[in-house]
Amino acid sequence: MEQLKQKIRSEGIVLSDKVLKVDAFLNHQIDPHLMQQIGHEFARRFRDAGITRIVTIEASGIAPAVMAGLELGVPVIFARKHQSLTLNDNLLTASVYSFTKQVESTIAISTQHLSSADRVLIIDDFLANGKAAQGLIEIIRKAGASIAGLGIVIEKSFQAGRRELENAGYRVESLARVQALRDGQVFFID
Amino acid sequence: MEQLKQKIRSEGIVLSDKVLKVDAFLNHQIDPHLMQQIGHEFARRFRDAGITRIVTIEASGIAPAVMAGLELGVPVIFARKHQSLTLNDNLLTASVYSFTKQVESTIAISTQHLSSADRVLIIDDFLANGKAAQGLIEIIRKAGASIAGLGIVIEKSFQAGRRELENAGYRVESLARVQALRDGQVFFID
Repeated sequence: MEQLKQKIRSEGIVLSDKVLKVDAFLNHQIDPHLMQQIGHEFARRFRDAGITRIVTIEASGIAPAVMAGLELGVPVIFARKHQSLTLNDNLLTASVYSFTKQVESTIAISTQHLSSADRVLIIDDFLANGKAAQGLIEIIRKAGASIAGLGIVIEKSFQAGRRELENAGYRVESLARVQALRDGQVFFID
Repeated sequence: MEQLKQKIRSEGIVLSDKVLKVDAFLNHQIDPHLMQQIGHEFARRFRDAGITRIVTIEASGIAPAVMAGLELGVPVIFARKHQSLTLNDNLLTASVYSFTKQVESTIAISTQHLSSADRVLIIDDFLANGKAAQGLIEIIRKAGASIAGLGIVIEKSFQAGRRELENAGYRVESLARVQALRDGQVFFID
C-alpha cells in the first residue's frame, strides 16, 4: 500500500535495527484518514472471505480494525490486556510476551461475543515475532471459530512472525512489509 | 442521540446502581457503524469550535475519537496508560484513579504531538466522576494548548464528573445522559 509506505518513510523513526517508531500516525497519534484507507484495503483483500467478525488487541489495533469493520459491515472485538470490573465472566485467555513492553501479559476475550459460527479476520498494527497474533489465534480457536486470515498494517519481515503463521497455514496480508531498518532508513520488500 | 440510547437499552447490562456494562458495542465488542454515527454527531456539535486535535485515552475512547477525527479532518492522540519502549521521551503525565479498574495509573502524552497552537476536543467513552477527563485536561494544559470542550459517549449524570467540569468552565457534550440505573433498567435524562 503505497500511501502507507510513504507515510512510514516521511514520519516513521528508526530507533534501532529492530524498532520502528510510528507514534506520529499509528501508535500514539492516529491519522484517521489513513486509517480509513487502511480499512478499505483490508476490506478489499478479505471481501470474499466470509468474515463475520474482526478480532484485534488493544490499543493500537483498534483504529485500523474499526475502519475495516465499517467497510465489511461486521463487529470488531478487541482483546483486553488488562482486567476490568465489567469484563469478568466467561473469559477465553492466552498468555503473550511483548518484546516492545518487555512484559508477559494475559489477553482475554469474553465468550459472549465469539462462537463456532464465526469466521474471523485478525487485524493488528504490527507483526514482528508473531506472539500477539498467536495469542489471538489461540483464543479464537478456543471459541471454536474459524480464522480467515490476518491483516497486518506493518510487518517486520526480518522477524519470524509471518513465516511461522504461514507455516501453520494462515493467510497473512500485510500492507507494508519492512525488509530492514538500517542507517536510520526503512527498506521495504517490493 | 436516540440511536445510542436505543442501543444502550437493548444491549446494555445494568450490573449495579453504579455500573453499566456496554461491552456489546463499545467497551469490548465495537459496533463500527454506531461509532461512525457517534463521530458524526461529535463533529456536528464541535464543527465551529476551531478544533485542531482530538485527545482521548486508551482503549475504549479510540473508536469514537477516530471517527470524530475523520469527520473533522484532524489527528487523534490517545493518552497511554502503560509504558512502551517507543514512547519514552518528553512525556507529559498525570495521575488518574480508575474506579472501574480500582487502580491508580499514570497517563502520558508525548510533547511531540501537542503544542500551544492546538485547540483540543477531548473525547471519551464514559464520564462518571471525571477523573480521567481531569487527567487529560491537566496534560493538555501542561502542553499549553486550549480546550474547546469534552465529547462524551455515555454520561452517568448521577455522578459528579459533569458538574465539576462545568464548574471549571468546560463545555461538556454527552450523547447519552444516564439519570439512574435501577431494577436492571437504564433511565435517561430527557
